[in-house]
Amino acid sequence: MTAFAPSRPARRAAYVASAELVPDVLSGSVLAVARMISRAEAGYAEASEALSEIYRHTGKAHVVGITGVPGAGKSTLVAALIKAFASDGQKVGVIAVDPSSPFSGGAILGDRVRMSDAAQSSQAFVRSMATRGHLGGLARATLQAVDVLDAAGYSPIIIETVGVGQDEVEVVTAAHTIVVLSAPGLGDDIQAIKAGILEIADIHAVSKCDRPDAPAAVAALRGMMTLGPGRPGSDWQAPVLPVSSVSGEHISELKDAISRHWDHLRDSGELHDRERNIGRTRILGTARQLFQDRFKRDVTELETHVQAVVDRAMDPSVAACLLLGWENEVQVK
Amino acid sequence: MTAFAPSRPARRAAYVASAELVPDVLSGSVLAVARMISRAEAGYAEASEALSEIYRHTGKAHVVGITGVPGAGKSTLVAALIKAFASDGQKVGVIAVDPSSPFSGGAILGDRVRMSDAAQSSQAFVRSMATRGHLGGLARATLQAVDVLDAAGYSPIIIETVGVGQDEVEVVTAAHTIVVLSAPGLGDDIQAIKAGILEIADIHAVSKCDRPDAPAAVAALRGMMTLGPGRPGSDWQAPVLPVSSVSGEHISELKDAISRHWDHLRDSGELHDRERNIGRTRILGTARQLFQDRFKRDVTELETHVQAVVDRAMDPSVAACLLLGWENEVQVK
Repeated sequence: MTAFAPSRPARRAAYVASAELVPDVLSGSVLAVARMISRAEAGYAEASEALSEIYRHTGKAHVVGITGVPGAGKSTLVAALIKAFASDGQKVGVIAVDPSSPFSGGAILGDRVRMSDAAQSSQAFVRSMATRGHLGGLARATLQAVDVLDAAGYSPIIIETVGVGQDEVEVVTAAHTIVVLSAPGLGDDIQAIKAGILEIADIHAVSKCDRPDAPAAVAALRGMMTLGPGRPGSDWQAPVLPVSSVSGEHISELKDAISRHWDHLRDSGELHDRERNIGRTRILGTARQLFQDRFKRDVTELETHVQAVVDRAMDPSVAACLLLGWENEVQVK
Repeated sequence: MTAFAPSRPARRAAYVASAELVPDVLSGSVLAVARMISRAEAGYAEASEALSEIYRHTGKAHVVGITGVPGAGKSTLVAALIKAFASDGQKVGVIAVDPSSPFSGGAILGDRVRMSDAAQSSQAFVRSMATRGHLGGLARATLQAVDVLDAAGYSPIIIETVGVGQDEVEVVTAAHTIVVLSAPGLGDDIQAIKAGILEIADIHAVSKCDRPDAPAAVAALRGMMTLGPGRPGSDWQAPVLPVSSVSGEHISELKDAISRHWDHLRDSGELHDRERNIGRTRILGTARQLFQDRFKRDVTELETHVQAVVDRAMDPSVAACLLLGWENEVQVK
């Protein structure tokens, strides 16, 4: 690269500044929505002001998180829900967080294709976010994508994630309604309990309800529900619903439960608390990511401090404060 | 409490300022060492300058991390190692990180008592750090306790931790020599692989070598070793050593392997890289904790920002930057 090489946006004449996309996003342009989500996913600094502006137009959509261990049948369920909501005339948005495992790539691609069929038959917008190479940035980008769909008039917006990993949990707790999907015979229960996912469910769905071991899984979950106190500060009783995404059985019951939970949040006033929790999760998650990014950018500065610590010229606490730019904290703690 | 109540240190005439303890720590006073470690553990702001000063006198000790899943027999092994090192005339320090589980409290107490017997019969200093109520501060306090022992002339210093959890892994990777203890029949292998612990071992020990299934566990680990490339940038071949802490069998071989690894680090020049890695781990770990503490202190500020985000007056990214005190980053990213 020479010093005179034009920067990438300048060379590509077709590049539209993010700020110019905002009005089109707000009027619901599918192309503008897709572009803005791509820029959020890539983490373009140029898009940050536009995303801030878009955020001001959010808060209308019902955000639904669907989570469960791999193999529970999340993507198939989401495809069925898209059809169910679309047949009611709702403009459904879906952001699927792809676990991006090299081993399951094929199967996941298959799921996405199946989901796209559902999308094509309706007004739905389906987008898969890649986790590869994003690490801490995934949750932020995913929720910014939800913002874009919200501002563009989509509702409900479904976030589909596997229920493991800090980012995935962060994403799903940013939903108004959390659906946890279990499958009979997968040993999900134990895994989900470990991940703390069952406790945060507003609705439990048990997939493959045509299987002979499905009633036992439903009974086990219902039994577990009677033990727990439910969500603090809420009198919502999380229902346990058997579903079959293949036959479409009980999908409308699940859809109704999702809508009923949204009505409950608004009627009871619990929505305000939920919104505050979502805001807190998003701020802290973003702060954590900015913090990690800073160390990635400042490698030289970090390594200078590392050498000072190795040389015993400075202790790790002082080095950490200097690196954070919190010099005044050095004396405090 | 009235406005005139004296602060706690003033009321307790016996309280010695941390700065005054430093010379006694450096001359090896057991009382001063114990007090300084207590202050590191409690996170007293008053002690931070003294701990910085103490850090300048570290870098002499050989720090040995011993890790393995609960039930592998770590505490018993550590007690046997104390005796073995002490019989060579070495001044052994031990910092044990207590998992603080309410269910295993009794057993752990038993182990500690057994370890103290070993300590009493020698020049060893044994200290158990509580994890309860510390969260992110555990790694920092534990490594500051190691600093205190280092400055006071203890070597080797053994850090004993369970090999699960971010803090525990952070602590053990701050050792020069990492011993991973497995037990036959515990299914450790899979759990250790999951935690990424096996890969970081400089020495593998297999406990309970008098059990009939011990040879199979040793063979499985040796087989696994031939698969992996070893630590990057090192030509050290991690040995797999069967031990029996109860009968004392093979303990001296393990002790010799630990000493041999220390010689290898110094002779090969790998010690410098190891020290840099340790410094980097400690700086980043401390920075992460300072960051978490900041949000705990600034609850009002955080909640003000949460409301602004709920009201769509501010997006989560801007709120995160303001909260971090990194206003200048708002436009950058």
